[in-house]
Amino acid sequence: MASGLSFGVDWYPEQWDEGMWERDADRMKEFGVDIVRLMEFAWAVIEPEPGRFDFSLFDRAITLLASRGIRVIVGTPTAAIPAWLVDMDPSVLTEHPTRISADFGRRHAACYSNPTYRERSLAVTRAIADRYGAHPAVAGFQIDNEIAFEGTDRCVCPACRSLWHGWLARKYGDIASLNASWGTVFWSETYSRFDQVPVPRRQSGASQNPALWLDYDRYMSDSVVSFSDAQIGILRAVAGSSKWITTNFYPAVLSNAVDAEALTEKMDFASWDNYPVWGDMTEPDPWMIPAFRETLVRGFGGTGLFTVMEQMSGIQGHVCLGHLPPERRVALWTNQAIARGGDRIVYFRWRTAPFAQEQLCYGIFDTDDRETERARVLRGNIKVVRETFGSFAGVPVKSRACVLHSKDDARLLREQHLSKALKPAGAPDWMNPGYDTELARWFAPYCVLNVNADVKSVASVKLEDYSLVSLPLYQMADPAFVERLASWVDSGGTLVLGYRAGARDLSNRNVAEPLPGLFRALAGITVPRFEALGDTTARIRVGLFPARGGVWADLIEPETAAPVAYWADRNKFYSGLPCATVNRLGSGRVYYIGTSPDPAAIFLLYRRILKSAGMKPRFFGEGIEIVDRTTEDGREVSAILNHTARRRRILGAKVGPYGIAVAEKRPM
Amino acid sequence: MASGLSFGVDWYPEQWDEGMWERDADRMKEFGVDIVRLMEFAWAVIEPEPGRFDFSLFDRAITLLASRGIRVIVGTPTAAIPAWLVDMDPSVLTEHPTRISADFGRRHAACYSNPTYRERSLAVTRAIADRYGAHPAVAGFQIDNEIAFEGTDRCVCPACRSLWHGWLARKYGDIASLNASWGTVFWSETYSRFDQVPVPRRQSGASQNPALWLDYDRYMSDSVVSFSDAQIGILRAVAGSSKWITTNFYPAVLSNAVDAEALTEKMDFASWDNYPVWGDMTEPDPWMIPAFRETLVRGFGGTGLFTVMEQMSGIQGHVCLGHLPPERRVALWTNQAIARGGDRIVYFRWRTAPFAQEQLCYGIFDTDDRETERARVLRGNIKVVRETFGSFAGVPVKSRACVLHSKDDARLLREQHLSKALKPAGAPDWMNPGYDTELARWFAPYCVLNVNADVKSVASVKLEDYSLVSLPLYQMADPAFVERLASWVDSGGTLVLGYRAGARDLSNRNVAEPLPGLFRALAGITVPRFEALGDTTARIRVGLFPARGGVWADLIEPETAAPVAYWADRNKFYSGLPCATVNRLGSGRVYYIGTSPDPAAIFLLYRRILKSAGMKPRFFGEGIEIVDRTTEDGREVSAILNHTARRRRILGAKVGPYGIAVAEKRPM
Amino acid sequence: MASGLSFGVDWYPEQWDEGMWERDADRMKEFGVDIVRLMEFAWAVIEPEPGRFDFSLFDRAITLLASRGIRVIVGTPTAAIPAWLVDMDPSVLTEHPTRISADFGRRHAACYSNPTYRERSLAVTRAIADRYGAHPAVAGFQIDNEIAFEGTDRCVCPACRSLWHGWLARKYGDIASLNASWGTVFWSETYSRFDQVPVPRRQSGASQNPALWLDYDRYMSDSVVSFSDAQIGILRAVAGSSKWITTNFYPAVLSNAVDAEALTEKMDFASWDNYPVWGDMTEPDPWMIPAFRETLVRGFGGTGLFTVMEQMSGIQGHVCLGHLPPERRVALWTNQAIARGGDRIVYFRWRTAPFAQEQLCYGIFDTDDRETERARVLRGNIKVVRETFGSFAGVPVKSRACVLHSKDDARLLREQHLSKALKPAGAPDWMNPGYDTELARWFAPYCVLNVNADVKSVASVKLEDYSLVSLPLYQMADPAFVERLASWVDSGGTLVLGYRAGARDLSNRNVAEPLPGLFRALAGITVPRFEALGDTTARIRVGLFPARGGVWADLIEPETAAPVAYWADRNKFYSGLPCATVNRLGSGRVYYIGTSPDPAAIFLLYRRILKSAGMKPRFFGEGIEIVDRTTEDGREVSAILNHTARRRRILGAKVGPYGIAVAEKRPM
Repeated sequence: MASGLSFGVDWYPEQWDEGMWERDADRMKEFGVDIVRLMEFAWAVIEPEPGRFDFSLFDRAITLLASRGIRVIVGTPTAAIPAWLVDMDPSVLTEHPTRISADFGRRHAACYSNPTYRERSLAVTRAIADRYGAHPAVAGFQIDNEIAFEGTDRCVCPACRSLWHGWLARKYGDIASLNASWGTVFWSETYSRFDQVPVPRRQSGASQNPALWLDYDRYMSDSVVSFSDAQIGILRAVAGSSKWITTNFYPAVLSNAVDAEALTEKMDFASWDNYPVWGDMTEPDPWMIPAFRETLVRGFGGTGLFTVMEQMSGIQGHVCLGHLPPERRVALWTNQAIARGGDRIVYFRWRTAPFAQEQLCYGIFDTDDRETERARVLRGNIKVVRETFGSFAGVPVKSRACVLHSKDDARLLREQHLSKALKPAGAPDWMNPGYDTELARWFAPYCVLNVNADVKSVASVKLEDYSLVSLPLYQMADPAFVERLASWVDSGGTLVLGYRAGARDLSNRNVAEPLPGLFRALAGITVPRFEALGDTTARIRVGLFPARGGVWADLIEPETAAPVAYWADRNKFYSGLPCATVNRLGSGRVYYIGTSPDPAAIFLLYRRILKSAGMKPRFFGEGIEIVDRTTEDGREVSAILNHTARRRRILGAKVGPYGIAVAEKRPM
Repeated sequence: MASGLSFGVDWYPEQWDEGMWERDADRMKEFGVDIVRLMEFAWAVIEPEPGRFDFSLFDRAITLLASRGIRVIVGTPTAAIPAWLVDMDPSVLTEHPTRISADFGRRHAACYSNPTYRERSLAVTRAIADRYGAHPAVAGFQIDNEIAFEGTDRCVCPACRSLWHGWLARKYGDIASLNASWGTVFWSETYSRFDQVPVPRRQSGASQNPALWLDYDRYMSDSVVSFSDAQIGILRAVAGSSKWITTNFYPAVLSNAVDAEALTEKMDFASWDNYPVWGDMTEPDPWMIPAFRETLVRGFGGTGLFTVMEQMSGIQGHVCLGHLPPERRVALWTNQAIARGGDRIVYFRWRTAPFAQEQLCYGIFDTDDRETERARVLRGNIKVVRETFGSFAGVPVKSRACVLHSKDDARLLREQHLSKALKPAGAPDWMNPGYDTELARWFAPYCVLNVNADVKSVASVKLEDYSLVSLPLYQMADPAFVERLASWVDSGGTLVLGYRAGARDLSNRNVAEPLPGLFRALAGITVPRFEALGDTTARIRVGLFPARGGVWADLIEPETAAPVAYWADRNKFYSGLPCATVNRLGSGRVYYIGTSPDPAAIFLLYRRILKSAGMKPRFFGEGIEIVDRTTEDGREVSAILNHTARRRRILGAKVGPYGIAVAEKRPM
Repeated sequence: MASGLSFGVDWYPEQWDEGMWERDADRMKEFGVDIVRLMEFAWAVIEPEPGRFDFSLFDRAITLLASRGIRVIVGTPTAAIPAWLVDMDPSVLTEHPTRISADFGRRHAACYSNPTYRERSLAVTRAIADRYGAHPAVAGFQIDNEIAFEGTDRCVCPACRSLWHGWLARKYGDIASLNASWGTVFWSETYSRFDQVPVPRRQSGASQNPALWLDYDRYMSDSVVSFSDAQIGILRAVAGSSKWITTNFYPAVLSNAVDAEALTEKMDFASWDNYPVWGDMTEPDPWMIPAFRETLVRGFGGTGLFTVMEQMSGIQGHVCLGHLPPERRVALWTNQAIARGGDRIVYFRWRTAPFAQEQLCYGIFDTDDRETERARVLRGNIKVVRETFGSFAGVPVKSRACVLHSKDDARLLREQHLSKALKPAGAPDWMNPGYDTELARWFAPYCVLNVNADVKSVASVKLEDYSLVSLPLYQMADPAFVERLASWVDSGGTLVLGYRAGARDLSNRNVAEPLPGLFRALAGITVPRFEALGDTTARIRVGLFPARGGVWADLIEPETAAPVAYWADRNKFYSGLPCATVNRLGSGRVYYIGTSPDPAAIFLLYRRILKSAGMKPRFFGEGIEIVDRTTEDGREVSAILNHTARRRRILGAKVGPYGIAVAEKRPM
């Protein structure tokens, strides 16, 4: 069993009669739990009145757990404010651009910029640091909970409006620079003072300048990051490096104003909440979606590993339920996270709450506290996965391929979504997960063809680590990064550009060069025309094989590049023009894919791309996922996951339905 | 012709030139009308200035009607406030949780808790009582109109906020009790004072505690009931028992914060507005829907009878129209209401209004006042139905089966709808008719198989009256009622429990026992797992026959019960597990149905259930409805309604297209 | 080449480095441009501080253009307010009935009734008049831009509320008249003072009186018209008749509170913005839609000609794109507009803006300023269409048929849309284009059968100019107009009435006569019953041929008329009744069509109608459009447009794919 692999549960001792605790602790031990997350919503418990702290309940709980050899993750409880904070200053309540202000009684009700909220958040964090910063039973800290989720990445309250003006003044120095950058000569939007600049809100009729929304999201991100950093600073001052610090992301991390990379910069690693099915969904996400999200979160911080802070165990929803995930699939999601670099899996939650907003969020155990099929399967799986995957779970995943994301492009797409397909229907009014979804589609080839790939940001990627890089939806191109890409390609790298690459500059202006702008020479093409396919698709052909493109259609004119796929749709006047090309440059290649390929196109295009980049695409059917890992003792192995209900033999290993296996890697 | 059967029209003399009245009265008489409803929106007419009452117009109208032998139903006009009330106190205008406050110029614009509105409502009621409380031409009174409809069952204005805090203080005594009951330890929602508790409003992002919504709906119900009771008190003080008092419900009575049973407790009987097609619907509701609703309304109060206060005659809508009901179908809806216990049918409305919000609500006559096909058919039908159904219309309907509803469960489902199927798409933002719709589905077996059934509340049902009881969606189980059910089953009763039975306690907490909680021993099963099917269905089999379940899927583990149906869907991992069971207990049986059965499943399951409960299921095809009645002279007859366009022979009687008949019941 | 045909572009010199101007001007000249629109959003440029005007930028730009022989259209820039105006008076910001108030930073943010906005609008107009009113390079002026679009035709701000009360007082004189007209006796809506009348806003629950909405839209229209007229007055005072004045309409001109005819009354002609595909649409409008809209706009003012002030060139959208129109189709849309009476085509826009809200609105050139396929095709087309259509482009179109619209009926339908089909899904919350869409359907027969038709208002049509008139959705019938129609029919005219004709009086009351009310004698029918078909259709037959009706179904009872089509749908109880009739009166005929006919029904019905009116229907397949024109030298020719990708021979002329041709008219 590897030391690197840890299993935990989310446990809320404050929600249960203390008489139940000891049995809980004993059963956790038996379950295989070595860590427990707690306290992240307990502000009202630990600070029942302003400035009066009472940690006795958690002291007892932690002592009990420690007595069973279980350590704890302490959450700072700032995601849910106590009632006295609203008494103290009603203006703490956040106000959304949809013009709905928050009321007390929900989580994420406070504005991160509000001075009172900030002051009291730091005070409670300080008290936690004082109490637990050096506590031997504490393994680490979680900052807030799903910070800036549920719409709180955008607040337009009066405090924000005022701080926003200061942020703009610092960024632009003088108002003329802002006017020039945003192009406010358009529609008479020219400002003469920073305090004239509105906060962005939903309008009835024409919308506001996309540059305003973009900068506002950057301002909000800075506000949230500084809020989190202040908590980190307080904890670090006491804990030093003896405890780790993290925060837990929700799904759709990228489609949020806050820069997740900046947020986790001062943390030890990133954590993530894994809910492949939630609420009224009647089918879970395809397995490539959590694979993408896990790889994305793994990419934040330098460890090459991550924690699943909430791994769903039972069926979940706030007001509505849907699909019940079979227990073996929940186990497989656990194992998939480990295969993708998760070395700590914390199940949400130990036991279902009987009351309040999450009484439909089912834990490992039901409120009746009896043994469940989930418990039985997950308990068994902990043993199996420790044995099977334990040897490599603590070793960072290595990849020679990487898919890149870009924060500003994600922000931009949220309000200017370009194609109906990039604003999925049914999302709540405070989010558009389109950027995450499209990035996942660009990560899918590496899943389907079973080639290790990382997901990194353009801001932090080390190109020298990779021989193949995918760069989808990279509209706002940074000249310095393009230059780095060029020399990396020249020395042998293979770059896969997606549609819209280079369409904008860093202030979101349309570039003054032919598309793909700064990438023109690299890609060896121009894209003088394009259309959005919205919820339709168009036929293409890759070689002689038919496939389909979706979302977007670039009408490519090769300059030095050669076509690798063509539009082939009789309903399109541009049928016959290339939709994907390749350009050789020095020792490398640049592919350009001017659409979002369907599964057939992914298979056909990426088999070629991967081979040309010296990689070995492997296809074992739709439900087989393979991640190559290195064990602690240096062996190269393949972690195999079977997402189907059929028994399979893969790379010589037998894999049961929803099962896992490991194969030693042989030279191929 | 039975004395018990009365026909009327809604007539608005204030909307017409007085020169038309006499002709109206004469034609009503000829039409077969013996009662007229009036005055329910005439506040501005009878009290043109605060405190100055002028009943002269209605005095003349009533005198005229009386001269033709027509009596009147006087409505208290409080559903539409006069403009001077807003002058007097603009805070009377209601504020909806969607954050849209009402403006003058619509009905249902006032908050039931507002002191000014209450005071002026009682004043106008007092004036009406003084004038008409002992008037010989007045048959009865209607309190308000569709009270608390159109979103006014939820107001979050400042007056409500303050009264809400008082209501909570009275209910819980101390804030610790509220905290314990709601589980406010969750998400730091703990209160230290009642005045910290917010009113529930729609949020952008996470919602508020379901216990908050539930108690708020209870508070609102108390407010509306006390508003209505105060009017009743004033009218009774003058009228005593010489006049009856009622109020008219809209469709979807249960899916409203207000407890219809409490509201009608001090009334003589309940009334209902029957619109099986309205607005932009392009098909009418299936006939089981009005059958259910009529039976439901019949169950309020002790008479076993009810009034249709608005029976649609022509096509109806406020801003949009849809399906035109054929005249014979309108007649059949009339007759169906009578078959189901309606003894007074008041047609909406005598003549179509030329102006204002309801100019698209067509009456018996059009604005041109010419003879219409509707008038011809309905006039003829009055004669036919008096002859055919008159002998039993005044005699309460008897049933040995009963479907039960529960107010708190209905309230709960409104905000926590569990399955997408329980929140029908297209409903306005102030209602979710899901509970009513699902109850109707559980009533459908009794319609299809033509067995008399009542619809009663768990609060008031007399179990000893029944040998078969259906109890769907009964989440918040009352231990006392479960005990009564147990002894009733023991002594021979047959209970049909639906999915989610016993899942919660009376404070809406998940029960600490295995599902179905308090029903575990009765049902002889546990339900450790379930999923919501949303808008999908799953295959089941009943015996060897295939059918489908919808809405919800319980994965049942029998303890002492025997399966009667199984999941049989290859896409479901739980295929093969039981979805319905039966448990024998003493002389009785408890069925548990862990899904919402489709028509095939209804047929197969309930044929068995009914037989085992000693009843006689009868199926004559989809469009045939039979209600067994007792005539005034004690004969047992079957009222037959043919909802098809084909001539049929049923129980020996010939029934024309959309026709009715009566068959003497023979011993079977 | 005809003097009457002019080509232009929208150019925004303030958005570009002045170093680019000269090349722009040279290329415009080469492109064939003789006119440039500018300044319509440049308020902040020309009045950077209140009262300080600076026209130097535009002086230089105009001088440059003039040096190339290009004249300019100067837009008054009032559609986008400068930031200092909000500093000066924050109450200028408009407030929509959906309760969303506008923020600075969007266009159409100001309330037309606000005194500060009005005063400053007139001041900037005066400065423009002083500077350019007599400038030789100025050809004309555009008032505002898409005035009252994007929801600003309805403002409910406090200033509006107060002016509204004054408007009502002036219209009704005393409050009793308002009460009588609106039928406020309904729902106790009776007012005792004008200042009690609310502004209309969206409610949660029941809506407000349609008469309130109708009058409010009339009030808003008066406000906007007076705003525009004041600008016209200032410009005329300087420019006299030496410059023309116009304003540019958006699509869906009729479905707006503002009366476009009143707005253009003091102008020289109307202009229109032609975007047959926009935003996320994945298919463009069928060609009959722009044909209808162009004909509609041509009908405002007396010239029989119109300007396309914005002819889309590239793909367009604010936050989302869709279909890319092939260049040849854009050219064909240009040519269609000319065929339909456009004598001045201004392309939107010269070059794509790099920034702000319209960076996805692509112009003739991209931001890279290179040659584009659009430029190549459109440049070539200017030469071709000048040659082909130039001889008649400046000569008003003549028609003997006319489709009529009615402002109040359009306003009425917006809030009371009658049938789900008349409120198209997907429209933004500030518009319902249903009236425009249905009018286009009633214009379609003249397109399909290639007969010239005008579109005029009932207020201004000269019946003597026509032998055939279609009058759809004419609910609020004016007795004087009905009388004029009657004598026109009597002397030989053919009238085609649509469903709902005559259903209301001019105050929107249901008429007190049988439908079609005042048209009963003319149509020779009554319509005692009807239903709305919503998004369904019903089978009909015309002669022996099957077809379908949609939207609405009148159940017609002929009195003196003869049926020409019947309902023939087995699912409809009224199958067999007539759905269309004809009545002979004097030398004329009145057709009544009680549904919205599908293409088959259009073909069958109108072939008959046109022939009976002495016209010659011609059908050449779905994509062939023919407009008969008179050349400047008096020849009668047919302009032929081929909307298909296939080469055709029509009337002896060869017409290429998406091509045009002219055929001399021979006596037929």
